[in-house]
Amino acid sequence: MRLKGVIPPVCTPLTPDGEVDATSLVRLVDHLLGGGVDGLFVLGSTSEVAYLTDAQRRVVLDTVTGHVGGQVPVLAGVIDMTTPRVLEHVRVAVEAGVSGVVATAPFYTRTHPDEIRRHFRTVAARGGLPVYAYDLPVSVHTKLGADLLLGLAAEGALAGVKDSSGDDGGLRAVILGREAPFSVLTGSEVTVDSALWMGADGVVPGLGNVDPEGYAELYRCAVRGDWEAARAQQERLVRLFEIVRVGGTRMGGSSSGLGAFKAALHLRGVIDCSITALPQIPLNDDEVGRIGKLLAAAGLL
Amino acid sequence: MRLKGVIPPVCTPLTPDGEVDATSLVRLVDHLLGGGVDGLFVLGSTSEVAYLTDAQRRVVLDTVTGHVGGQVPVLAGVIDMTTPRVLEHVRVAVEAGVSGVVATAPFYTRTHPDEIRRHFRTVAARGGLPVYAYDLPVSVHTKLGADLLLGLAAEGALAGVKDSSGDDGGLRAVILGREAPFSVLTGSEVTVDSALWMGADGVVPGLGNVDPEGYAELYRCAVRGDWEAARAQQERLVRLFEIVRVGGTRMGGSSSGLGAFKAALHLRGVIDCSITALPQIPLNDDEVGRIGKLLAAAGLL
Amino acid sequence: MRLKGVIPPVCTPLTPDGEVDATSLVRLVDHLLGGGVDGLFVLGSTSEVAYLTDAQRRVVLDTVTGHVGGQVPVLAGVIDMTTPRVLEHVRVAVEAGVSGVVATAPFYTRTHPDEIRRHFRTVAARGGLPVYAYDLPVSVHTKLGADLLLGLAAEGALAGVKDSSGDDGGLRAVILGREAPFSVLTGSEVTVDSALWMGADGVVPGLGNVDPEGYAELYRCAVRGDWEAARAQQERLVRLFEIVRVGGTRMGGSSSGLGAFKAALHLRGVIDCSITALPQIPLNDDEVGRIGKLLAAAGLL
Amino acid sequence: MRLKGVIPPVCTPLTPDGEVDATSLVRLVDHLLGGGVDGLFVLGSTSEVAYLTDAQRRVVLDTVTGHVGGQVPVLAGVIDMTTPRVLEHVRVAVEAGVSGVVATAPFYTRTHPDEIRRHFRTVAARGGLPVYAYDLPVSVHTKLGADLLLGLAAEGALAGVKDSSGDDGGLRAVILGREAPFSVLTGSEVTVDSALWMGADGVVPGLGNVDPEGYAELYRCAVRGDWEAARAQQERLVRLFEIVRVGGTRMGGSSSGLGAFKAALHLRGVIDCSITALPQIPLNDDEVGRIGKLLAAAGLL
Repeated sequence: MRLKGVIPPVCTPLTPDGEVDATSLVRLVDHLLGGGVDGLFVLGSTSEVAYLTDAQRRVVLDTVTGHVGGQVPVLAGVIDMTTPRVLEHVRVAVEAGVSGVVATAPFYTRTHPDEIRRHFRTVAARGGLPVYAYDLPVSVHTKLGADLLLGLAAEGALAGVKDSSGDDGGLRAVILGREAPFSVLTGSEVTVDSALWMGADGVVPGLGNVDPEGYAELYRCAVRGDWEAARAQQERLVRLFEIVRVGGTRMGGSSSGLGAFKAALHLRGVIDCSITALPQIPLNDDEVGRIGKLLAAAGLL
Repeated sequence: MRLKGVIPPVCTPLTPDGEVDATSLVRLVDHLLGGGVDGLFVLGSTSEVAYLTDAQRRVVLDTVTGHVGGQVPVLAGVIDMTTPRVLEHVRVAVEAGVSGVVATAPFYTRTHPDEIRRHFRTVAARGGLPVYAYDLPVSVHTKLGADLLLGLAAEGALAGVKDSSGDDGGLRAVILGREAPFSVLTGSEVTVDSALWMGADGVVPGLGNVDPEGYAELYRCAVRGDWEAARAQQERLVRLFEIVRVGGTRMGGSSSGLGAFKAALHLRGVIDCSITALPQIPLNDDEVGRIGKLLAAAGLL
Repeated sequence: MRLKGVIPPVCTPLTPDGEVDATSLVRLVDHLLGGGVDGLFVLGSTSEVAYLTDAQRRVVLDTVTGHVGGQVPVLAGVIDMTTPRVLEHVRVAVEAGVSGVVATAPFYTRTHPDEIRRHFRTVAARGGLPVYAYDLPVSVHTKLGADLLLGLAAEGALAGVKDSSGDDGGLRAVILGREAPFSVLTGSEVTVDSALWMGADGVVPGLGNVDPEGYAELYRCAVRGDWEAARAQQERLVRLFEIVRVGGTRMGGSSSGLGAFKAALHLRGVIDCSITALPQIPLNDDEVGRIGKLLAAAGLL
Repeated sequence: MRLKGVIPPVCTPLTPDGEVDATSLVRLVDHLLGGGVDGLFVLGSTSEVAYLTDAQRRVVLDTVTGHVGGQVPVLAGVIDMTTPRVLEHVRVAVEAGVSGVVATAPFYTRTHPDEIRRHFRTVAARGGLPVYAYDLPVSVHTKLGADLLLGLAAEGALAGVKDSSGDDGGLRAVILGREAPFSVLTGSEVTVDSALWMGADGVVPGLGNVDPEGYAELYRCAVRGDWEAARAQQERLVRLFEIVRVGGTRMGGSSSGLGAFKAALHLRGVIDCSITALPQIPLNDDEVGRIGKLLAAAGLL
């Protein structure tokens, strides 16, 4: 069965001292489920997985799988540098009862395509549950080509791909080249209607934390073939997505994007504290104010 | 007191099933100390730190600090994506009794220079022992500029730098701009004489696993001002360094380099097994044979 | 008036000794016009502009503008490293009577965004005809952001953009942020239906040399709102686009792509000789044979 | 005969309206020859070759070769995107009577190593005079590896290399692997003593425009084996090289570096006007003042 629909990467609310705020996390999960999403992706880049300790990752996994109780599929990111470290995260995720894991190509190391293949094959063989490739060149500095993905799909090592490369031509090559049941999910917030139009199965939008109803509505419009309405919804979300640029050049792109999602969730009353993990620079009051205005303009405040 | 001399990044011998081979590791440590090195750097890139699980990293730390018993300084790599994860590794390293830690800038995330500063400051403040910056753009995709390093040195957040950027102009800017006791160590295997000539304090050569005597001799020549002899030694080591290219284009640069060091250590009888961690592609018999010839040409077999 | 429709970048047929084959070029222009295109873009990357001498560029300009005689707009690439050199090409293009020029950001040099702005402003001010920005990070190593483009559009320095960045999220930001009459053209061969769906005005497809009818039909379907038919046409063209990968890894991407277009034009009887300029590696007989099969599968032989 | 010594890349003085100031150029050539340099490299990156029109390039060639009259070798950059365009520049340079040409790998295009080889072979075969490879990854986005350079040297296609890659390990591999008479010249301003120590034949320092005596003295010290004096001279020049950073982040690196050299030449009375070509941002009065202070500190005002 092919995974599909809206599967947001779930933000990880933190307490002021930097620990996982499980109460806020449960509230966020309810906010997302109430918004009509079809699954949850925990421990992705938007979840600040790169900043969470292993103990914190485990708290997130247990909190979310425990609360969701099988209502929707829960995918878990197993983000680490190489195969042995990824396998450790897979083991923990399996124990927590997730539906599948999401793994990148190795990073930090200099890795050959044949080694990337070996990596995914090993994760699939030892993990014992569906593996989704996470294509994120901005972080991993490798682009997963259509040939590599389709080859691994054909041999059963991959159940799907979350494509956050921004390369919709490559996305389409995978869609047209695949054989069922390989699931193609776009990680873009701003080309979801067109990805679905091309045949993508779903979307994993960080902005879906802030406006799950928007993405759920977009997806429903697409499924019933009302593409005009899907586009109108998408264009509204493109404007909302401007919140990630409020931080500007005085901080890194991770701080600006993740900080905006958390500030918006705080303004909407979903999480208690908008803090992001070290060493990210926090948004200031003026910047949060501008995020509030963009939320209001989108009808979310 | 400024750290100086030859401080090789210690390879991590593995058993055929991929676990740390502590017996071989102890033998390697003795081989290095017997070769006249001035310190040890465990859990660096050459140690396959990116491939070792946290449990394996701890075995390495305990094995080496336990065996060395304070004869020479032991530095530990605390390689991970961001501050909170790095702090976990620092805590373990402190428990193991190391002399200092070696940390990169954040990777995987998109990080601003001010965030890199915040990262090193936090690691230094919470770690409570000397922090050395690890400048490795090929892995981290950020170059640590002289201004950033010298600023952090001036405020006491950094005790030194291991420069594996290959940018000896940048290295020199740090050397000429620093104020004691900031230690500048080159990570290059092939420009050690010139780095010492410029005023570097020492060297962290991966190839030093294979030929510690060579680098120790090079360093002694430089200290006593016999630069002609230092250069001759260096040129011999440049030729030996060809072993890292034997793997060619059928594997990644990490596999080719780390595989060559381990194959050489196995051929020299130091470690029991030359296996590298997943997903690296192993060298084949022909390639190991060519490494053997290069070792013989260098007088090491 | 906003430029729109199908505006293929016209290949430059060469004689066996590497000179411009004006006879074949005229035949190619007729093939394109007969195929229903709305304009022509000469001296783009697909035209091998980077390989043509200034004298050859002038032959192309004069041949095409002379033959077209104002039936459709002719745009000319003015591809060079910096402003003064670009201005020379603009002068020649103006003399030849083109409708507009297409310029990249400076390359080879290390250029600040404010300098990129100054570059486009100067080209616009001195050229005296519409300037289209050419966003091609794979060649220029700079991505033209939506803010930069929209700012230059607002002040009248740019008449449009040819976006060959592959970043359709960025394309959409320009579309939604622009004010008429700024023309947005995608340079993608494989996401044309979705770009038009988002509101793009047209397309500049290299593959349009080979199958102008296909892109013209795709565009007409989109204009009349028959998106299903547009998608079907696009998917056929995606499969045809496989010809650019036939060259594989034994040559550069430029050779593989440009060689495939020319081989296909030769097989279709449009140009006399499929040679590409130095130092490109030519496709061999086997590769040309595979291109023939892909053409046949697309109904073009 | 192997080219050697100090061969500065000659700045191109411009008049306020952006034309070549031949009078100032002659004065600059005299300043360099009087400073004791061993050759001249015109139309390099430091000469703003990327900004000069073909007509301006020709003025530079004729002015310098005419004035030098064979006293020292004159090399000419033939900087352009691909082989046919480079060959045009070679033809003009040969007519002007230069001693050799300096060519990069192709840029703008996506080029395979075998195509880079074909490029240099063609330039050498058709040019009929010595060809020096220009290794400048920051502009060309390709690194010329030691294997490629040494292979082309062995077959006689290359007479030498100007290495501006900053990778002194790679420089050393070429030095140790070469067979006479392949000339290795470093393009670094700040590691000249160490490059000569490794066996390099000479240096092509942009900063040599400002202080030719300094580099000439450094070279003489090295030749006579007085390495301590060479290092002291080099360290003085490292401090002077700070002038290239005065422009900071409000302009591109090209503007900052080339602007500093020209401002210094103007302050020293060598050239009439410090203007740089479009679209470079000029240094302001404050920045020029800081350059003046650095010149004074180096004993040059």
